[in-house]
Formats: sequence, C-alpha cells, structure tokens
Amino acid sequence: MPVKLNAPQAASLLPVSGIELGFAKAQVRKPNRKDVLVVKLAEGTAVAGVFTLNRFCAAPVVLCKEYLAQQAGIRALLVNTGCANAGTGEDGLSRAQQSCEALADLLGVNKNQVLPFSTGVILEPLPVDKVIAGMPAAIANLKSDNWLNAAEAIMTTDIVAKGVSKQITIDGKKITITGISKGSGMIHPNMATMLGYIGTDAAISQTALENIIQYAVNKSFNCITVDGDTSTNDSLILMATGKANNAEIADDSANFVVIRDALTEVAIELAQAIVRDGEGATKFMTVRVEGGKTEAECRKVAYAIAHSPLIKTAFFASDPNLGRILAAIGYAGIDDLDVNNMQLYLGHILVAEKGGRAASYREEQGAAIMQESDILVRVVLNRGSTDCTVWTCDFSYDYVKINADYRS
Amino acid sequence: MPVKLNAPQAASLLPVSGIELGFAKAQVRKPNRKDVLVVKLAEGTAVAGVFTLNRFCAAPVVLCKEYLAQQAGIRALLVNTGCANAGTGEDGLSRAQQSCEALADLLGVNKNQVLPFSTGVILEPLPVDKVIAGMPAAIANLKSDNWLNAAEAIMTTDIVAKGVSKQITIDGKKITITGISKGSGMIHPNMATMLGYIGTDAAISQTALENIIQYAVNKSFNCITVDGDTSTNDSLILMATGKANNAEIADDSANFVVIRDALTEVAIELAQAIVRDGEGATKFMTVRVEGGKTEAECRKVAYAIAHSPLIKTAFFASDPNLGRILAAIGYAGIDDLDVNNMQLYLGHILVAEKGGRAASYREEQGAAIMQESDILVRVVLNRGSTDCTVWTCDFSYDYVKINADYRS
Repeated sequence: MPVKLNAPQAASLLPVSGIELGFAKAQVRKPNRKDVLVVKLAEGTAVAGVFTLNRFCAAPVVLCKEYLAQQAGIRALLVNTGCANAGTGEDGLSRAQQSCEALADLLGVNKNQVLPFSTGVILEPLPVDKVIAGMPAAIANLKSDNWLNAAEAIMTTDIVAKGVSKQITIDGKKITITGISKGSGMIHPNMATMLGYIGTDAAISQTALENIIQYAVNKSFNCITVDGDTSTNDSLILMATGKANNAEIADDSANFVVIRDALTEVAIELAQAIVRDGEGATKFMTVRVEGGKTEAECRKVAYAIAHSPLIKTAFFASDPNLGRILAAIGYAGIDDLDVNNMQLYLGHILVAEKGGRAASYREEQGAAIMQESDILVRVVLNRGSTDCTVWTCDFSYDYVKINADYRS
Repeated sequence: MPVKLNAPQAASLLPVSGIELGFAKAQVRKPNRKDVLVVKLAEGTAVAGVFTLNRFCAAPVVLCKEYLAQQAGIRALLVNTGCANAGTGEDGLSRAQQSCEALADLLGVNKNQVLPFSTGVILEPLPVDKVIAGMPAAIANLKSDNWLNAAEAIMTTDIVAKGVSKQITIDGKKITITGISKGSGMIHPNMATMLGYIGTDAAISQTALENIIQYAVNKSFNCITVDGDTSTNDSLILMATGKANNAEIADDSANFVVIRDALTEVAIELAQAIVRDGEGATKFMTVRVEGGKTEAECRKVAYAIAHSPLIKTAFFASDPNLGRILAAIGYAGIDDLDVNNMQLYLGHILVAEKGGRAASYREEQGAAIMQESDILVRVVLNRGSTDCTVWTCDFSYDYVKINADYRS
C-alpha cells in the first residue's frame, strides 16, 4: 500500500479556468479502464515541457518536442495508458501523428497544437484505432472539474491517483494551481516513467514558464528514484492559461519567485506521491547529503544510497543494518572521501562517525526509527557547503511481484 | 537454488603443493558453522592481491595492502565469516592486527606475514577473542586436500561452496591450479562482497603474478554483478608456491601467457559461480555488448542492462518484456547513440533493430528463450569495434527475502 498517501477527493482538486479534461475507456490494453485522457486548453495558454533524456525516447516524446518548438500554440493534450509507443521506430512516430491529427480534427485545431503522451508497455505498436475511437467519448465529458478522473485515466501500476491543488494570491487575484501525476516503477531522475501535468490560471510569459519548469523539475521529479530505471516516456508539462487576469509574470517580475515556488511546491508533492506509491513501497525514505564540495558529489552519495537494493531491502525489513549505508557511501565514487571525517544519522540519531559506529549509538535507537514509515537518512560529509535531498522507497517482495507480473 | 551450479566434490579440488588449509567452528556469529579458515603457505610463495575500491574498505583490507607492500613474504591467510570488521574505525584495525599477531605467534612467523580477511555484517566489532580461540583447531586440521572445507568455511549467504581445479603442463611439469570463492550479494565489480583465493604450484615471479592478477580480475570478478553494491571487503588473492619446480615464469617468459590464461580461466569460473549462486538467482544472464567505440561505453550499456531491477524481475518471470532492455540501453549514458542503428538479440533471435521491434521477431521466440536458465542478451551498437561481456542473474522474491532477513 502507498506510504501515507491517499487518493485526493474529487472536490479537493480545484478547477483551473481555461483547462477542461475528459477521459474514455478505450480498451487500449485492458477492458473497462480509463485509459485515454484529453485535456483541452483555452487559446493563448502558455505551455512548457521537460522530457526524458533516454536515447530510446518514445515516439510521443519526439513529437512533443517538435510541436512545442513550432510554437503553434498548444490547444490540447492527448494521453493514453496501456502502451508506451516506445521502441517502435518510424511506425510509432506515424501512429502518434495519426492520433494527434484525429484529435486536432475533432477539436478544430492543427495537429501540431496537440501534444501526445503514452505510457505502458514498451516495444509494442500503439493501437491507434482504439485511441481514436475513444476520443469522442473523452471530448463529450470534457469538464473543468474532472481532474480526479484525469488522474485515474493516466495510472498504470499506480495504486492511488495522484493530484494536488494550491491557491495563492498575486496582484489581488486568486491564482489556482492543480496538478496530477502518475508513477510508479521505472522511476529515476531525467526522469521517471512519470507523467505530470500542472495547470494554473496565472498569466505567465513563455520564457518565464520555461525557466520555472526547469527549476521545478530539478527540485522535484529529478530528485526521486524508485528503481533507478529512467523511462522512455517521461514528460512533465506546465500550462498557464492566463485566465486569472493577473499582470503577465515575466522573468523579472516581482511575482516570478512567488509563482515559481508555488508551482515547485506542487511539483514536489506530485513527485513525492510517486515515491509514496512506488511499486511495492512500504517506507518513504528521504536521503539528505550535506557538506559536500559540489552538488554533483552530494547527488552521487545520495543516489548510491537510494539505489542500493541491499539498503532498500533492509529498510523493507525494518532492520537497522546501517553498515550497508556506509558501504554505499564508500562506493559512491568520491575518490578522496575521508571516511573518518563524516557522520551518518538515522533520523536525529548519530549512527556513525570517525569511520565507525558512534560510541553513543544503541541498536534499539535505530530499530525504533526503522519502525516508522517516513525515515530520514542524513549524511554529513564535512567537505564543503552544498547539499542535496532525494526521495526514495524501500524494496519489497511486492516490487518483484509487480514487475514480474506487469505484462501478464 | 543456484543456476546450474553444484558444490564441487572434495576430490575434484586438487591439492596444491605448498598450500595447506584448516578450518574451525569458532562461533563468530552463529554456532556450529565453519567460520574461520587458516591457509598456510610454504616459504617463498609469491602472493598478489586486488581489493575493493570502496572508500569504506574494511580494516582487514587496509592491513592486507599494508602487509603486501612490506614484502615480508606472506606465510598465512586468516579468514573469518560472520563479521566484516568494516565501518569499525581504529578499533577495527587494532582487532585485525591482534588476530594476525595471534596466528603469527602460533605459526612462528611475523604478523606482517599473515593476511587477514573478514566477511559478514558491517559496522559491528570483530569478536577477535572468538577468532583467536578458533585458531588452534584450524591449525590442527591443516591439510593440503582441505580445499572443499575451506570453500565452506568462507561462505556467508552462499548456498553452495565454490571451487575449481585445473591442471596444465609447463616445461614438462604438471602444474595445478585450485581456487575457491564466495559471494553472493553485494556483488559488483571493483569488486563484489567477494572473496577469492587461487593457488598454484607454478613458480611465477612477483611482478608477473601482479600483472596476471590485474588481467585476470578484469576478465572475471570485475565482469559480474548481482545487485550493483560494491562491498567493503572484496579481496582476490593469487598464490604461487613454486613447488612444481618449473623455471620461474617472468613477464617475458614464453609461458607467461599460458599460466596467465589458465589462472584467468579459473578466476572466470569462480566469478561466474558467484553469479550462479547470486542471492535468489533463478537465471544466469550473459550480457554482451559489441561494436562500441570504447570499452567504457560497452560497459555502460552492459551494466545498465545488468543492473536494471525492471529487466531482472522480467527475467525472473520468464517474461520477454524486452522493451525494458531498450530503455536501459537508452539511459546508459551514450549521448550520441543512434538508436535506429543498433540491434538487440535474445540468444540468437533478432528482437529489435531500426529503433523498434524487428519485423521477423515473434513473441513466441522470446518466450521460448526466456524458459532457459542460461540466457544471452546481445547488443550490437554498430559504432566501433570494441566489446565487453558481463554476467549477472535475475531478481527474485528470494533476493528480497535473503536481504531482508540476513541479520536476523
């Protein structure tokens, strides 16, 4: 079960003026499942995206980048689950294009105003006929208060739908931000098998939105890992409709930091939700590395810990087998690390220092913290002044079960 | 159960003149278990070692390097399981030294002629009194035909003992090589939670032996991975007693390549045995990457595949979910990889080319190969002429079980 995470209430996901969402049960892979999502955007909506760095990026990712670059004004998003349309070569591109064309025709826009997204099994052809056949139903139920259905329509192995809303005030105008995301395996920065869509009614310039999404993704989706696998399809999209009628926020606006931080908070919550619903997760781990010379070396240490199957299985067992953490720090790749001059904390308990177990540490202390479902692992390198935080989950029988059985 | 691997017969592990082995049940961690091994070497034996690159390397690793550098002539090895004596700081070094001193006294040699090794739980103090108390029993049963008992005495979570012998002829002399190893989690190059000891009665110069061990380790123990964790204690030792009375082999001897390749073959068999007995393994996977520009990029791709929990769980399920392999190739870190110009084979079956599924590929073909216990994954990058091969195993419920329960 997800770690301290419940699906949001439908009413808690606030409508964003200028954004309507509709779903269909198109039987892309399985019957009776919401598996196609259409998001319709008001004219003039600014849209920015970041995408997987995987060289085998999926056909829809290729098209998204191409269409965004053409700046035709994005008017709709089309998402399907059940098939990733990745590892599908030229044929995959053609099928993704066909689906964009079909939706564009139905909505009366151009195909390069429709961004396509797919998630699911890799290496299989997209059943584009089924996706297209589902579109009229999805369009028929386009509504602004349909975020929870939308969150459900993008799930794959997710157990709960993920969504969050937030409101702030800018220029005396109430600004709404609502986002949804899906995980939950193949989760790794740059990025995860992860889809995220965050909408706001704030007016934000295209350039400002592009800066915000880079900032937000580095603080959120690029700080999570479930299994270290970077997917072919990861995409995060920010949409700003401008319907709140605030003065358009540019990079140098006084309100730039305000909207940036609010959007980033939503992104962090959506990213953490993916980890909390990580495949088979029973524990949510925050790995914080402080006192590094560079952020890069802090990330090396944090990810060495967050990726270690030995550590993740020990957390699953609630076993304070903390030597495995020292081992991971040791192989993280900092060649001149002085292991005699660093500290390891579990929660607020000093576990190791001077190259070994702290004299004050008692196994009962570690065991007590291991019983909790949210656990902080803190490493102080004492080499510099940078830090980084990543979030991950433990590694359980169910991870194996879910991934051994996923296609069947 | 190990994948196509049985414990060797005692008689199949041939004595090596100049090497005697004795064990004790010293109750280091658990009762009634062979957990201390003493290896006694004839005077004049050449000894070379390679050790973990983990910055948190264990106290015995620190001492091994120090003593080998002093070139006092190694006369004995001392191995204990049950406690790694790693993450133990100054106190751990002192305990390792005490154990070397105690064995040196009993054997009438100096402490820097005794190399210490430990494997087991990290971050706990070595019960040096128990190790020392076990020494007389181990010395009492020193025998040259004790290799199987020795292999059993170094096991931790290993299911079967690992050992192999080989004989070749050099200068008309019969040369014997016998080696033992242990795994079986925290297995990763540079190196694994891996101990390996290979003895030969060949006469080999110290310099030649050091060159041979570097060559052999790069072709064997540095090509295996179970879970990507590089341990604190990994050590591989080559011992050449010279008792076969061949002309001493130097770097430039005609026989250098002959003995090097024979020792390397033994090292490869011992390394593969560790993977076949990898924690929870049900399948043995050979990942071969060809046509790379550099060996480094071939290794990146091979390890991206060999480390992916998603791929390893699919192999556990015998599910030809091969898109996950494409995804791993894509995120391996070759920035200019042309995914449209590479091929993926499962066994001899072409699975993917031109960025997608091969037209000739049928799911039944993949499914049939997935039923086998030894499976070849072959990637042809078509970028250059270098290649590399790594060996790994699948990821099962039992991996989680073993590592969740290891300390308890």
